[in-house]
Amino acid sequence: MKVGFIGLGRMGQGIAGRIRSAGHDLLVFDPAPGQTTALEEAGAVAVDTPGGAAAERNVVVSMLPSDEALRAVLEGDDGLLAAMAGDCVHMAMGTHGIPAIRSAAEEHAAAGQDFVACPVLGRPNLAAEGLLSLLPAGPPRAIERIRPLFGVIGKQTFELGSEAQTATTVKVASNFMLGCAIEAMGEAIALVEKLGVDASLFLDVTLQGLFGAPAYETYGKMIVDKAWSGYGATAVIGLKDADLALEAAGLADMPLPSAHIWRDYLLQAIERGDGALDWAVMAREQARAAGLEE
Amino acid sequence: MKVGFIGLGRMGQGIAGRIRSAGHDLLVFDPAPGQTTALEEAGAVAVDTPGGAAAERNVVVSMLPSDEALRAVLEGDDGLLAAMAGDCVHMAMGTHGIPAIRSAAEEHAAAGQDFVACPVLGRPNLAAEGLLSLLPAGPPRAIERIRPLFGVIGKQTFELGSEAQTATTVKVASNFMLGCAIEAMGEAIALVEKLGVDASLFLDVTLQGLFGAPAYETYGKMIVDKAWSGYGATAVIGLKDADLALEAAGLADMPLPSAHIWRDYLLQAIERGDGALDWAVMAREQARAAGLEE
Amino acid sequence: MKVGFIGLGRMGQGIAGRIRSAGHDLLVFDPAPGQTTALEEAGAVAVDTPGGAAAERNVVVSMLPSDEALRAVLEGDDGLLAAMAGDCVHMAMGTHGIPAIRSAAEEHAAAGQDFVACPVLGRPNLAAEGLLSLLPAGPPRAIERIRPLFGVIGKQTFELGSEAQTATTVKVASNFMLGCAIEAMGEAIALVEKLGVDASLFLDVTLQGLFGAPAYETYGKMIVDKAWSGYGATAVIGLKDADLALEAAGLADMPLPSAHIWRDYLLQAIERGDGALDWAVMAREQARAAGLEE
Amino acid sequence: MKVGFIGLGRMGQGIAGRIRSAGHDLLVFDPAPGQTTALEEAGAVAVDTPGGAAAERNVVVSMLPSDEALRAVLEGDDGLLAAMAGDCVHMAMGTHGIPAIRSAAEEHAAAGQDFVACPVLGRPNLAAEGLLSLLPAGPPRAIERIRPLFGVIGKQTFELGSEAQTATTVKVASNFMLGCAIEAMGEAIALVEKLGVDASLFLDVTLQGLFGAPAYETYGKMIVDKAWSGYGATAVIGLKDADLALEAAGLADMPLPSAHIWRDYLLQAIERGDGALDWAVMAREQARAAGLEE
Repeated sequence: MKVGFIGLGRMGQGIAGRIRSAGHDLLVFDPAPGQTTALEEAGAVAVDTPGGAAAERNVVVSMLPSDEALRAVLEGDDGLLAAMAGDCVHMAMGTHGIPAIRSAAEEHAAAGQDFVACPVLGRPNLAAEGLLSLLPAGPPRAIERIRPLFGVIGKQTFELGSEAQTATTVKVASNFMLGCAIEAMGEAIALVEKLGVDASLFLDVTLQGLFGAPAYETYGKMIVDKAWSGYGATAVIGLKDADLALEAAGLADMPLPSAHIWRDYLLQAIERGDGALDWAVMAREQARAAGLEE
Repeated sequence: MKVGFIGLGRMGQGIAGRIRSAGHDLLVFDPAPGQTTALEEAGAVAVDTPGGAAAERNVVVSMLPSDEALRAVLEGDDGLLAAMAGDCVHMAMGTHGIPAIRSAAEEHAAAGQDFVACPVLGRPNLAAEGLLSLLPAGPPRAIERIRPLFGVIGKQTFELGSEAQTATTVKVASNFMLGCAIEAMGEAIALVEKLGVDASLFLDVTLQGLFGAPAYETYGKMIVDKAWSGYGATAVIGLKDADLALEAAGLADMPLPSAHIWRDYLLQAIERGDGALDWAVMAREQARAAGLEE
Repeated sequence: MKVGFIGLGRMGQGIAGRIRSAGHDLLVFDPAPGQTTALEEAGAVAVDTPGGAAAERNVVVSMLPSDEALRAVLEGDDGLLAAMAGDCVHMAMGTHGIPAIRSAAEEHAAAGQDFVACPVLGRPNLAAEGLLSLLPAGPPRAIERIRPLFGVIGKQTFELGSEAQTATTVKVASNFMLGCAIEAMGEAIALVEKLGVDASLFLDVTLQGLFGAPAYETYGKMIVDKAWSGYGATAVIGLKDADLALEAAGLADMPLPSAHIWRDYLLQAIERGDGALDWAVMAREQARAAGLEE
Repeated sequence: MKVGFIGLGRMGQGIAGRIRSAGHDLLVFDPAPGQTTALEEAGAVAVDTPGGAAAERNVVVSMLPSDEALRAVLEGDDGLLAAMAGDCVHMAMGTHGIPAIRSAAEEHAAAGQDFVACPVLGRPNLAAEGLLSLLPAGPPRAIERIRPLFGVIGKQTFELGSEAQTATTVKVASNFMLGCAIEAMGEAIALVEKLGVDASLFLDVTLQGLFGAPAYETYGKMIVDKAWSGYGATAVIGLKDADLALEAAGLADMPLPSAHIWRDYLLQAIERGDGALDWAVMAREQARAAGLEE
């Protein structure tokens, strides 16, 4: 396939690298200088504009860190809306808000173009290994055209229907549940520690019992070891995830009380200067609130 | 072994039944009439007092619904403290508070008796099948004497050391985490439903992804199916679990913010008359807050 | 003075009526038909566009219900930015968000025009009687020019300096405190009622003691009487106020935990169909959570 | 009158001093050595037991810091229940929990004695000046006998009926509202400060407007000035007040969500070592959460 790729941060590099390794023709674009070097060495060709990455492509993938970044690659003379041919699919893999995805879907449709939201589950270290889970949703004909890429990028794919925003909703709600799980573990681990119980003993019981799932394994260990660096999503990105969940709750006109708790701990961690640490660092704020850390 | 058993509610009947089936000599006591009938038919002998259940026993097991009920079997001329011989072990399997377990441990020790806290993980339907997980903690010599029972009662045992309150702390913290997980699922499922996404699709993604653990499987299905009856812990018992967690946080002089959220939904469910439904019914209150139920 | 007035809802009608009664020359504009009739009968002249209301004016006042409505009167060929002369002041009296006021101030400044934010404290029934408190902030020369209007419109004026957003921040924070006070009264009144104490006795003690201030007098009585209609700000407007406070907290990168509590009760009231009742109706949701109302 | 006085902390000394100054015959008791010296110099006579303070008295006043301390003076051979004559009234002025007051009322009644709960509103510095507000409730004949003391002790008296627990409920709910008001001010002041607005300007607007009441005047100034010492109730006592409110909510089977917020900030302040500062120090924790203090 002829693939364009926009946004070569840590997730993007991993995914684009897999696409290139699978032998696909690859154009790459990133607004920041130097981000495309590794892929160029692997045979990709760098272009100067978002629209350039759509030239004669079957699919153009975006992996962007924010709704603003997505908007920036869509609009303007050099943007995707102006540049994409009618048989090219835009596959947006970043974690975006529901309104942003709704707008992108509407605008592509109005331009006679196909748009698929395809957020992923998994941390950057899994991207390069092809161990992500994919959550694509969009028009069936578009899904069909990009389906060959799914197996290249991920280990598991959940096709979520024809509405792009369904994929986004599932992703946002899933991140919300993950934040709640980290919060709950942080509170529980502080509680047992403060009462004199060995935290790894407690974690062991929970992981072998009711909570033997990756969410608890990954983050539980991090909290018990107080190891907040070298991982995936940062506190700053976690805050974005909280805000996307609250934005979704706003659209749904409903309360989402659990989100506020961990959002506020993340905010506190960021204020303290820990924004670049793993978002599990919210647990350190709980430990501090418990008087366990100075 | 010669075993006494006090407290034959749903959990108690299941556990005592397994002990009897394994061929142990069994005395049974319950303050409510009729609770011992099934076990008597299976060969157990009913007695009239808690102390009676300790007569010439190696171990007397209690499975009681509250700290008050535990206190009632300990005290008085007919109570365990007065009746137990020095080589008999009291193994308390109910979910109790940390202060109640501390007191029981101290009073048994003062009376020259051994006490083991052995809370369990698992719902009543698992008890009869021997599928509980056991969390024993107490003096090593006592653990050693009752160890043969562990395999009879449960499928998995985590020996948690020599302090009875360690077991209780782990159990209370584990229940707290379970309440948080149900709360998070309830909020997330209401969110996706209100935004037009099929809840079982969402649940499927989460279970196959980061949350593939029994806690999420059992309760996620219940919430999606809106099936609140015929299961294990009720809303009233869930409220007790919340209060035990908050009691523990009080002892630890630390906040436990997530506990308040689901405690308040449980309270609302109970006020509405749903106290005897499964505690996952907290999710129905969330759905109501979201405007999804009348 | 020659005054233009844009936005003739309940607050606007009261304020514009006072300006006209004081003998000022008045042009009026409202996008909805029929809103200007009463003022025309009092001698004001209706115009067809926002810009029309600025024609040869010393000041054009806006009293608009949302940031979107403010934006709509600023932009376009018929908007204030295009129409205002350099010696005309735009005095924005609505309750707006900080970003919206920042933008308006910047755009007016870029167009060589003066902009004053002048939110008010007080319910609509006080507007017509001139009993509002005014919170103006903006360039000193602009404040000086519009100062004669302050005594006409309000009973009390707090000049808050040269930055328009200061006034908005004070207004948003003040509304936040009011929401918290209503929330606290609602919880306290439900508590004493449920424990068998006469709520008006309790209110009497608090009003004669530590809480003898208008915020508590007005809303305390409403909650005790369960009288939710015929007043000022509705639940829907209260929700907007909560969101403005949370928007401000977002700009400030800080948690604002108390806002979530009453925001969620308001949301619940609105879902139930009570959006047009006074925002003190949040107390009815608390009473329901306490099991005091069916 | 012949008066006994038990509990001579800061509040107790102020109140007992006024009773003595008014010429009443006074016996005093405090478990801690040295607490009665000042009153003895003023003509009071110290006794060795709680019961001793009831000897030939018309009324014995207690002003005790906790439910445990109240219980300790009631029970035992030297306690009030054993010592009080039938025509002596026990007037309990401390801030106690509803269950503790219910028990005291029942036990005195069973002993044929009269009991009046009479909590106060006001900080210790007001006690010595006779500026407290009194909230008495108890049997009418008992109220009648002690009524002459009300004007000696306080500036304002709210007689709350014949049930002692009514007075306690009003006091607990009033303290709850005060905690909420301090919390709301703390959040609002941190918000405006972080957005660059002078906090005293903001406070000025709120005090002259909707919030011109002692609760806001006293604590608002303290928060703006960051002056946390030299005042009345400490953070540790504030935490007790939060717990009494939550105990009341537990009795009422209802949520009290606002209490958790400031309870958790108080807990954090105490953990940090600020337990002896004024409970308004909860606002410093909010400021820290906002990144305003290191």
